[in-house]
Amino acid sequence: MVYPDTFEGFQVDGSETWTTFTKREIKPKPFGDYDVDVKILACGVCGSDVHTITGGWGPKHFPLCIGHEIVGEALRVGPKVTLIKTGERVGVGAQIYSCLDCKQCKNDNETYCRHQIDTYGAIWPDTGIVSQGGYASHIRAHEHWVFPIPDALKTTEVAPMLCAGLTAFSPLVRNGASSGKKVGIVGLGGIGHFGVLFAKALGAETWVISRSHAKEADSLKLGADGFIATADKDWNEPHRMTFDLIINTANSSDGFDLGKYLSLLDVHGRWISVGLPEGAGQEVKSNMFMENGCLIGATHLGSRKEVLRMLQLAADKGIHPWVEEIPISEKGCAEAGKLFSVVET
Amino acid sequence: MVYPDTFEGFQVDGSETWTTFTKREIKPKPFGDYDVDVKILACGVCGSDVHTITGGWGPKHFPLCIGHEIVGEALRVGPKVTLIKTGERVGVGAQIYSCLDCKQCKNDNETYCRHQIDTYGAIWPDTGIVSQGGYASHIRAHEHWVFPIPDALKTTEVAPMLCAGLTAFSPLVRNGASSGKKVGIVGLGGIGHFGVLFAKALGAETWVISRSHAKEADSLKLGADGFIATADKDWNEPHRMTFDLIINTANSSDGFDLGKYLSLLDVHGRWISVGLPEGAGQEVKSNMFMENGCLIGATHLGSRKEVLRMLQLAADKGIHPWVEEIPISEKGCAEAGKLFSVVET
Repeated sequence: MVYPDTFEGFQVDGSETWTTFTKREIKPKPFGDYDVDVKILACGVCGSDVHTITGGWGPKHFPLCIGHEIVGEALRVGPKVTLIKTGERVGVGAQIYSCLDCKQCKNDNETYCRHQIDTYGAIWPDTGIVSQGGYASHIRAHEHWVFPIPDALKTTEVAPMLCAGLTAFSPLVRNGASSGKKVGIVGLGGIGHFGVLFAKALGAETWVISRSHAKEADSLKLGADGFIATADKDWNEPHRMTFDLIINTANSSDGFDLGKYLSLLDVHGRWISVGLPEGAGQEVKSNMFMENGCLIGATHLGSRKEVLRMLQLAADKGIHPWVEEIPISEKGCAEAGKLFSVVET
Repeated sequence: MVYPDTFEGFQVDGSETWTTFTKREIKPKPFGDYDVDVKILACGVCGSDVHTITGGWGPKHFPLCIGHEIVGEALRVGPKVTLIKTGERVGVGAQIYSCLDCKQCKNDNETYCRHQIDTYGAIWPDTGIVSQGGYASHIRAHEHWVFPIPDALKTTEVAPMLCAGLTAFSPLVRNGASSGKKVGIVGLGGIGHFGVLFAKALGAETWVISRSHAKEADSLKLGADGFIATADKDWNEPHRMTFDLIINTANSSDGFDLGKYLSLLDVHGRWISVGLPEGAGQEVKSNMFMENGCLIGATHLGSRKEVLRMLQLAADKGIHPWVEEIPISEKGCAEAGKLFSVVET
């Protein structure tokens, strides 16, 4: 069988064999009235992909085709679709469904909908079909989670915006990153580099906070206004109570002295984590928050409105993420996964 | 010597003898241009008093006169004082000085001023004198930290508002407690009971969250709209994502399953701790925050503006905290401390 009955994708069969991708036919969920089928042109590599297939986030539904930073062409739209037209270049990120009816959905918090479906590895309730991701020929998603892409953005550059970019952009705008604010970005990986690009584009004074000085030159090249290395002695002292917001994109919390990071925050400043490090958590005590009344939290993706705003901002400001291109194939997927698991620490 | 050269107060000599209070002459800091001397009429008992003299918060400067929920009469005002008049009934809380010149002070965050002086146990930088609290004849404080008390409020009822009350009131108003919002108060001790009274007075739907059902009747009597006992099986399930704000007043985090409490919060809802439990902290992981994008933090006291607003609200709405009266004496101080250390868990 071929499209539209089946898609073709590269699947991993289990966490023991996570570097082996096998090309297979994939059965999509039945086509719904609000669904859009996208013919895939490019798909970014996200840290979630590696956490998922290596088993770092626990057991998953295998065989599994990962990938959720998808750009393609809208091939077919359901009879009730109004947001997307056939032939449009569109993006799909890490979520493909939300109910649009609950309190969360009605308040632009559809990413926190309790009926949400992840782009891959989630079970569609009616059919039991496991959603399959973007290292594939096609993806089927609810129109709400399919985004028209401004012409000014290159396909390969916009792909990683759809998860990594949004993961940085949403907490920046939700927590007031703008002119007159000072923002810190902890970690300069995929998400962190978008944090710098978007915080700057939103007008904030933007600093990178990293373990060593290794990424200082790259940070400044991306546009950062300053750089802090936490390996330096008393690194936090000169910066106490000066940051309004810190986005923590670090993929590991090993050796983190959270209290020192929090001392950087101004009164009621916020420390927002957007990664999901594997392993143990961190100990917190009330006195870590008392000096400045700061808050810590985490966010998950962002809303459709935020995706559209982000893409327009990227187009208007000429934002160019740093990307490397690898062909989507059995060999390419394995290469990307291995590369990512080395680089993204 | 007598006033104004010295005050008289009941001091504790060390944490080993924390239940022994000895009446002594106390040397106050030199009288400054902006200082107000208050003749003390009443002083509330705060959990901080017990944490301090028992050594639970670590070593302190002994001998020490504690007490920072003070009501009295303004006896003498410095030549530059404009906020207070001699003869006025006034309150003094847990802070007696802030610089009024830094960014924090200029933004109504003077409680986070890095030059702030606590009412007792803090060292005045110029003289090295250790500040002494309110189980005494008099207190000397900067006028900014002396508050006129509306006539409608009883002296003994307003005293505990000056620390416990403000500690509940400030995070409620800073985090939007108002009509249409649902607020949880964890723990029904001194601060928690003010949390219920003020959250209701601000118009919020107010629930008490306690370990057992022991305080359910008192909660409803105070005006709470609902009660949750965390000893009940699956206690959090019916209330998931329904609270906008939870003020955690618990004096201990032993056995707390923080993730379950956080599951009660709506998207970006906040868990604000106002106590400083002794002992170990709690482990947090990003996935505890991801389901609802919630935030956790802590606050410290509140601003002068918030004190004045709180007192006016209490007067306007006829708020009556539950108080018990004990004479301020060597015996009374010991009795209050022991009573508090039993009750306030």
